[in-house]
Amino acid sequence: MLSKSQVSFVNALHQKKHRKEHLLFIAEGYKSITEFLQSDYSVDTIFYTPSAAPKLGKFSQKVKLVEISANELKKISTLTTPQDCLALIHTPQKTILSTESFKNKFTIVLDGVQDPGNLGTIIRTADWFGFSEIVCSEDTVEAYNPKVVQATMGSLARLKVHYGDLTSLLKQTKLPVFGALLNGTPVYETDFGREGFLILGNEGNGISESVITTITNKVTIPRFGNAESLNVAISAGIFCSELRRSK
Amino acid sequence: MLSKSQVSFVNALHQKKHRKEHLLFIAEGYKSITEFLQSDYSVDTIFYTPSAAPKLGKFSQKVKLVEISANELKKISTLTTPQDCLALIHTPQKTILSTESFKNKFTIVLDGVQDPGNLGTIIRTADWFGFSEIVCSEDTVEAYNPKVVQATMGSLARLKVHYGDLTSLLKQTKLPVFGALLNGTPVYETDFGREGFLILGNEGNGISESVITTITNKVTIPRFGNAESLNVAISAGIFCSELRRSK
Repeated sequence: MLSKSQVSFVNALHQKKHRKEHLLFIAEGYKSITEFLQSDYSVDTIFYTPSAAPKLGKFSQKVKLVEISANELKKISTLTTPQDCLALIHTPQKTILSTESFKNKFTIVLDGVQDPGNLGTIIRTADWFGFSEIVCSEDTVEAYNPKVVQATMGSLARLKVHYGDLTSLLKQTKLPVFGALLNGTPVYETDFGREGFLILGNEGNGISESVITTITNKVTIPRFGNAESLNVAISAGIFCSELRRSK
Repeated sequence: MLSKSQVSFVNALHQKKHRKEHLLFIAEGYKSITEFLQSDYSVDTIFYTPSAAPKLGKFSQKVKLVEISANELKKISTLTTPQDCLALIHTPQKTILSTESFKNKFTIVLDGVQDPGNLGTIIRTADWFGFSEIVCSEDTVEAYNPKVVQATMGSLARLKVHYGDLTSLLKQTKLPVFGALLNGTPVYETDFGREGFLILGNEGNGISESVITTITNKVTIPRFGNAESLNVAISAGIFCSELRRSK
């Protein structure tokens, strides 16, 4: 049974400002929630309908379980078709970015990606290819937006997503900074080496001017046909694959 | 000015059965509409708001132009935030698939892709990489679904999308049939040659059993991390890139 104030508390978390205020975000569906339960994240509460009871019982020591009706779940869900459980999860503390922590690996950098579906798909894809973190500009869509969480299909539980000032971070690094631009070296002729950053820009405007100044290697996915641009998540997928292929 | 019957006629075209009945579909936005005007498609009518008048005037010989208010556009648009014009376009005649027409090139084959955004993104990506057609199983989402048209960003005007019985088509061909499966040869070690088919399956279930029997070469995008699966549009992007890289 859900009280009125619980309904409005969870609904407030659909919005960014309340997620920031309460340091909580929402994940929905058993698969996604179990990924968070098995990670470093701290799950606060799981609201579930009776049908989800058998599979959730084993977590009763670890987390607050609240049984609700399907109708009540509908009232707090961010989905058009709610699944059978919804969790409130604590947002992890913000880590301070230092160039030291990016050595001996590749890090995907996103400058101003706006679409939640794109960010979610990029996180899921980066997880498939074994990347452990993504660094985003402050104006990139928030990773705890429910649409992003949903699109990551549980990968957000494994991949760290940092937000910060890209220009100042990338100006300090001595590692190569690859930038996805239209006038770069074809990706098929690029030797990415073993460490560095790869920057992808905003859906409409690409990489911002100040971040462009930090790029040491411009790279391009060659165009063979007539489409004006590639979707940023598709580009991210191709770059992730090329980074792994180089190894 | 729009009559009530015009509003209900355009709204009916939001649904597949009425698109099939009237052999018309909807495209929205100046960029997308001009791509269709410059293609083999026959544009029937463009509804536009006064702000779009200057840029559309040049097409007045070619197509029926109907000025409407922004409020009227809202009534017939498929978008939450309508742009400044909406076109009704004739669906092209269905072509009969023959194996002959697929020689000397690669053709992307989709078996049961359900999400309109995925199909639209795949069409846009295939256009970027210079593919000229896609073949879909009958149960793949319809290419003239407004969400697909929108996601192709105009590429649907250039790329032919066929629907048909994949098993019977692929059983007849002598070209190699590559299938994206989890237990295949890594894509990085695959020589795709210069012609053939590449099959991608449904978001949840992959390639159907009967279509799997037609595959001559199983290929896999290797997993380096922990995500359970890759989005089908991301896989399509990586395969399109690999097919061009092989050339």
